[in-house]
Amino acid sequence: MEASARRKGQGGRQARQARRAEAGAPAGRPGIRRAVPPIELLDEESLLRIERAADRILAEVGIEFRDDPAALALWRRAGARVEGALVRFEPGMLREILSSAPRAFVQHARNPANSVRIGADQVVFAPAYGSPFVMDLDRGRRYGTLEDFQNFVKLAQSSPWLHHSGGTICEPTDIPVNKRHLDMVLAHIRLSDRPFMGSVTAEDRAEDSIEMARILFGADFVDANCVILGNVNVNSPLVWDGTMTRALRAYARANQAAVVVPFILGGAMGPVTTAGAVAQALAETMAGCALTQLERPGAPVIFGNFLSSMSLRSGSPTFGTPEPAVGSLAVGQLARRLGLPLRCAGNFTTSKLPDAQAMAEGAMSMLSAIHCGANFVLHSAGFLDGLLSMSYEKFVLDCDLCGALHTYLQGVRVDEATLALDAFAEVGPGGHFFGCAHTLAHYETAFRPSETGDDDPYETWLEAGAEDAATRANRIWKRRLAEFEPPPLDPAIDEALADFVARRKAQGPDMWH
Amino acid sequence: MEASARRKGQGGRQARQARRAEAGAPAGRPGIRRAVPPIELLDEESLLRIERAADRILAEVGIEFRDDPAALALWRRAGARVEGALVRFEPGMLREILSSAPRAFVQHARNPANSVRIGADQVVFAPAYGSPFVMDLDRGRRYGTLEDFQNFVKLAQSSPWLHHSGGTICEPTDIPVNKRHLDMVLAHIRLSDRPFMGSVTAEDRAEDSIEMARILFGADFVDANCVILGNVNVNSPLVWDGTMTRALRAYARANQAAVVVPFILGGAMGPVTTAGAVAQALAETMAGCALTQLERPGAPVIFGNFLSSMSLRSGSPTFGTPEPAVGSLAVGQLARRLGLPLRCAGNFTTSKLPDAQAMAEGAMSMLSAIHCGANFVLHSAGFLDGLLSMSYEKFVLDCDLCGALHTYLQGVRVDEATLALDAFAEVGPGGHFFGCAHTLAHYETAFRPSETGDDDPYETWLEAGAEDAATRANRIWKRRLAEFEPPPLDPAIDEALADFVARRKAQGPDMWH
Repeated sequence: MEASARRKGQGGRQARQARRAEAGAPAGRPGIRRAVPPIELLDEESLLRIERAADRILAEVGIEFRDDPAALALWRRAGARVEGALVRFEPGMLREILSSAPRAFVQHARNPANSVRIGADQVVFAPAYGSPFVMDLDRGRRYGTLEDFQNFVKLAQSSPWLHHSGGTICEPTDIPVNKRHLDMVLAHIRLSDRPFMGSVTAEDRAEDSIEMARILFGADFVDANCVILGNVNVNSPLVWDGTMTRALRAYARANQAAVVVPFILGGAMGPVTTAGAVAQALAETMAGCALTQLERPGAPVIFGNFLSSMSLRSGSPTFGTPEPAVGSLAVGQLARRLGLPLRCAGNFTTSKLPDAQAMAEGAMSMLSAIHCGANFVLHSAGFLDGLLSMSYEKFVLDCDLCGALHTYLQGVRVDEATLALDAFAEVGPGGHFFGCAHTLAHYETAFRPSETGDDDPYETWLEAGAEDAATRANRIWKRRLAEFEPPPLDPAIDEALADFVARRKAQGPDMWH
Repeated sequence: MEASARRKGQGGRQARQARRAEAGAPAGRPGIRRAVPPIELLDEESLLRIERAADRILAEVGIEFRDDPAALALWRRAGARVEGALVRFEPGMLREILSSAPRAFVQHARNPANSVRIGADQVVFAPAYGSPFVMDLDRGRRYGTLEDFQNFVKLAQSSPWLHHSGGTICEPTDIPVNKRHLDMVLAHIRLSDRPFMGSVTAEDRAEDSIEMARILFGADFVDANCVILGNVNVNSPLVWDGTMTRALRAYARANQAAVVVPFILGGAMGPVTTAGAVAQALAETMAGCALTQLERPGAPVIFGNFLSSMSLRSGSPTFGTPEPAVGSLAVGQLARRLGLPLRCAGNFTTSKLPDAQAMAEGAMSMLSAIHCGANFVLHSAGFLDGLLSMSYEKFVLDCDLCGALHTYLQGVRVDEATLALDAFAEVGPGGHFFGCAHTLAHYETAFRPSETGDDDPYETWLEAGAEDAATRANRIWKRRLAEFEPPPLDPAIDEALADFVARRKAQGPDMWH
């Protein structure tokens, strides 16, 4: 689980094949196996009420599946009531369909030591996703570029506290909209040897992403194993757009995992009250997850959720607030009752700087991901500015928080060595543990050092320049980028990927929006 | 529970007596009644192992009670094995003694609407305690003065998110050590109408504090009700100093609540491993709590704990780190098994600025207080600099976090109104909830606005000066102090307190260390 335990990938198709075989085994994955149980917030009756409300929404109001006749055909065949684009579902129908989805699955990385297990008691941290802007202390806010995107892939790869390379870490806005997915997937493969996500913004972009995964892993391996995720969003309330369902079906068809996520801003795309928003999200997510199983029974799928709150003053969304933090605990319970891996919450804030607000909100939100039992924590690092900006400094600070959460999630080990009864006998009342045998044996591993925090005495800190955490983080990301070395990649695969990207880029005009 | 629901105190002894009678009722206290359950980290076997380790420490190593013959006499009479200052306890003996301690109790405030219930599912937030220094953005770090102390009492009183005025919020170092408790208690009574804490640094200072409470509440009322807390520390490992036990016994004798707290820096005053530190703390705390029951069976007492970690580089204590955060969860379980109200964790950091580090560490640490089930959260607001400094800005930021935790701890209400099924029927797929009846009925109360966070769009924030959270907090505390009005206090009581303070100050020389 530690970075030091990860082996560098070695070149050669054979070696890779050998490692792939090893990757089938479920043990020893990176990611965290949690010893801290999720919080069970609601009682059985309240959970049943939410589930029944979701069932009524599905049966009485229904969900529209727009611009995707194949999806409507799947629903019709499965026995749903389809009228035009509106689909209604008998209570229990979606749960029945979802019973074929795996409770947990392995997402393979090109370096098998980095493959992750998603589900059950596993926790996987991935960078934030989807910001058009980037920020740093030197240059402020600007539109993201491919260079920024590549930088964040490098920073993620070089952090021992993330397990996943993520997807659209920031939008590379200097590349045409219809071609940037090629550069993004290529960067994930070249600059990282961890698992990653592909595009979902059009069916052909989803298929390009999967095709590139096939070049990397081999087509047969991909058909039998999850190697790429696609994060698809509901157009809440109660609408699935064809762009998303076609991408979702493309991932499922290829036996790859869709992450199915409603985005409900209370008072706009859903009720302002958390229980209603959660019921709606449950309905929308179950429908999307079930569609993956109609496309290909047994395909891996992740139950996603994203709650947000609203500023009463401006009507704009707020993040890192307590309502979604506690609402996520209920979402976690519902996902566990469905037996699906969960993506929920992450590190959110509306702050425009990597300041006290950013980390107060970010920590509350990130801890709700931990306590709700999320298995795949997208948005673990980088967000500022209400999800609109990726911050270089915040990324570094958030990775450090992820490191602290590794320690937190390990819980408290209780055994003869940790209870230290011999030490009490040795030291006695009024004594000092500093030199005792127990301390000497354990002090080096007892406490995790922070990467970004300053624990010097005040005077030392003052003499060293009285820096704040953001300034230290600024220095850290620059050093990380300067020292970065990409993990080795088979040159033949690299070339095949480059060829694929060049060929696809040559097809069709550039689109800029 | 809301500030708006609190009545201003009205003058007159009769009115006060009437309010006191009302204060006996347990309902409608301020403080939070939690709907989020504590985290049950360890299984039964692990908890038993820690309890048995504590029992063995108590029986085989023992605890020294220094310079307090009366305490030794109490132990001897209770059947403990006393040899010199060393006291050893048969397994089960302390638990038996502790069975007379209340599981929860009311601490009365001079404004009965502010009385708090401590224990069970209640959460009470109090300011930080004990820093020699204060800090603000304008003047940096300096020794605390009585004016600073008074300022923090005012800031606490003016926050709707704290429930308690605390104790030594900062050391008023411009007042002699042996007399400053008089000014501190006077400030708590004059500038706040919430519950407060008294001195413990010498037996006569503890008795002065209680005597001032008697002037305020009446001697009979004080003998029958808890009106003041005293926070006493173990001299870990396994030593209780006479200064502390005499103060502890003074509080118990007066039927007032001692908060019994070991301070274990792993590797120095206890083992570096969390399980051992927790076992030691359990032994030390049980002994202190039991002593209160020998002094006066039935006296209220709070099981306190304070875990810390260590910097491997410097050997100095670190705060807001994950090891104490998760260790606190185990401590909470042990306190609940003992059936005692719990004080544990708080808002800790080693940062020297109200920056990202301060709130990342502070939030992790504060949320561990929430999730471990702490009933009395001392140190909820203000600490920076490894507990050495009270920061004006951090205080404001922390109070805002306490506000967010009010919302978080309320959990998720699930009923017909919050499930909003009518709204889904009204809005339908693809519709908008903004104008629907459900939103109009609930939006004003749905989301708590932050006091210190900025949720404006980037451009608005930039035009308004691009301030960070610390700068906003700086403005907020200045405005709060400028607008502060002390809650009304019966002039006769005010005068009697002033007389008492003047008389006691005139007795004996000033001591400066």
